[in-house]
Amino acid sequence: MSKIFAFSIRKDEEPYLKEWAAAHPAVEVDFTDKLLTPETASLAKGADGVVVYQQLDYTPETLQALADLGITKMSLRNVGVDNIDMDKAKELGFEITNVPVYSPNAIAEHAAIQTARVLRQDKVLDEKIAKGDLRWAPTIGREVRDQTVGVIGTGHIGQVYMQIMEGFGAKVIAYDAFKNPELEKKGYYVDSLDDLYKQADVVSLHVPALKDTINMINDDTIAKMKDDVVLVNVSRGALVDTDAVVRALDSGKLFGFVMDTYEDEVGIFNEDWQGKDFPDARLKDLIDRPNVLVTPHTAFYTTHAVRNMVVKAFDNNLALVEGNTPETPVEVK
Amino acid sequence: MSKIFAFSIRKDEEPYLKEWAAAHPAVEVDFTDKLLTPETASLAKGADGVVVYQQLDYTPETLQALADLGITKMSLRNVGVDNIDMDKAKELGFEITNVPVYSPNAIAEHAAIQTARVLRQDKVLDEKIAKGDLRWAPTIGREVRDQTVGVIGTGHIGQVYMQIMEGFGAKVIAYDAFKNPELEKKGYYVDSLDDLYKQADVVSLHVPALKDTINMINDDTIAKMKDDVVLVNVSRGALVDTDAVVRALDSGKLFGFVMDTYEDEVGIFNEDWQGKDFPDARLKDLIDRPNVLVTPHTAFYTTHAVRNMVVKAFDNNLALVEGNTPETPVEVK
Repeated sequence: MSKIFAFSIRKDEEPYLKEWAAAHPAVEVDFTDKLLTPETASLAKGADGVVVYQQLDYTPETLQALADLGITKMSLRNVGVDNIDMDKAKELGFEITNVPVYSPNAIAEHAAIQTARVLRQDKVLDEKIAKGDLRWAPTIGREVRDQTVGVIGTGHIGQVYMQIMEGFGAKVIAYDAFKNPELEKKGYYVDSLDDLYKQADVVSLHVPALKDTINMINDDTIAKMKDDVVLVNVSRGALVDTDAVVRALDSGKLFGFVMDTYEDEVGIFNEDWQGKDFPDARLKDLIDRPNVLVTPHTAFYTTHAVRNMVVKAFDNNLALVEGNTPETPVEVK
Repeated sequence: MSKIFAFSIRKDEEPYLKEWAAAHPAVEVDFTDKLLTPETASLAKGADGVVVYQQLDYTPETLQALADLGITKMSLRNVGVDNIDMDKAKELGFEITNVPVYSPNAIAEHAAIQTARVLRQDKVLDEKIAKGDLRWAPTIGREVRDQTVGVIGTGHIGQVYMQIMEGFGAKVIAYDAFKNPELEKKGYYVDSLDDLYKQADVVSLHVPALKDTINMINDDTIAKMKDDVVLVNVSRGALVDTDAVVRALDSGKLFGFVMDTYEDEVGIFNEDWQGKDFPDARLKDLIDRPNVLVTPHTAFYTTHAVRNMVVKAFDNNLALVEGNTPETPVEVK
């Protein structure tokens, strides 16, 4: 009987781990909520493979501790592999998998909801209501259906965002350096980013951070946009020159700003700053603005995504354990 | 040259009044921000008709003051006519119009956004972020696409809500005592409310308050619903037994509750209670709950809707003034 051991399982992951275990009665599954370290590695004793997810480094010592137990098949529940000591992993003969896509909809839905909330001035209204001010004027909403929504990047996430916006009745236009033939046939693409900036009431970013896209939103490109535009970035913080966005919020050029990622987020997001000095004054200012919606890189965080992270990692690990080809192997080099 | 005078024009209505005036250069248009009273009626002197919108009663004295100026053509920018003394209006020969539909999308979009926010636990997350707690777990979202959305009432608003939810990828089912043939053909309808309650992860109400629908959401019907259901009421407060909803929130039966209308809202909504005793402890408790989104009957309040209220009222008034048939006359009896 194969055995798979999982580290750092959170409460919200447990139901999906148990679901997977129930569907695979021939596999023994055990887990801990502890992170994988040289000390905790021994919890996996007797297992054929491990399922993991942590920000903490997978150090040479940690990998050696697993290898000493005869375990060299490791499946990440997330995408990032930067924190794995690959030289050591290679030396020890590790086989590794990750989960590159959990749920494009999680991110696209979040982007759509936040877009609609900014258009509606919901944050202003909600704060009034919480204080006992139940007057509606002058907090008037803009309907999504009246907007031209410009989508930059038409991969999985961008396409789901487009579908949602069309469900609202918005006019959707798109730009991508690599055009999707189906979308092109349907006439979504404008010829240039300048065209998109000129027409869009909402500009939403769904591209990776590459040389050509880093700081693509800056003073110059914002100046090309319509007045009262809503800017949405749930992709990568580096796409946006945050100081330029702050200037455009101050001037009133931007109607609002949605951000789930931030160029300086590492070490700030997913931490509790209550009762401590908040480490970034610019971010605090953005959080406090009535027309800005900040979330700390949580767009991905849905039950659907977490289920996929768990189930796909276990599927991958079982494939490794049984000597089959896993769906999403990571090159160990 | 015809002249139309408008009372109680708010700042957010002015652009649309000016747009209408610019499109009708042969009509003289003037306005005030004051309500229509026996004293202010004289502002309309020389006008052929008036455009109005107020909660304040149109008393016999007010109507007489208009009639004394020769003005008996009155166009409401809203739907409700309860505050017009109809006996006096009839005696004086008034012709009256209203605007029964401003924007079904305004209300449907609001319902959809609030539904998605509750599923996502956005209120909990936003409050964490505002306090400086940027940890994402355990505030996990449910994706709209994973839900079966049950729509009760498939008129204009219900249908737009269905479209938006389908744009998200949700499964939509519906119930209506009067089935829409197009929707029936597409297979949306379940056979009974009980069927809908049994299947729906979200139950959204889009029906008028009638003998059969008042308090249709009560202890008995909630008990028929799935656990962790989200209840959405942007229609009429009287549809819901609020005490039953509070019990279901307390027990954890309901995952969340969206309310834009409240059975006791008259005299409470659209008032400023800051620095005063809040008049309704049950409402205050609902506002403060992390899984309840209360808005004070603002779902209708969008630029699109306000434009329609102004433009349609002026169109109606011009028709009256020119002796044509207005689009939406009110029976004066």
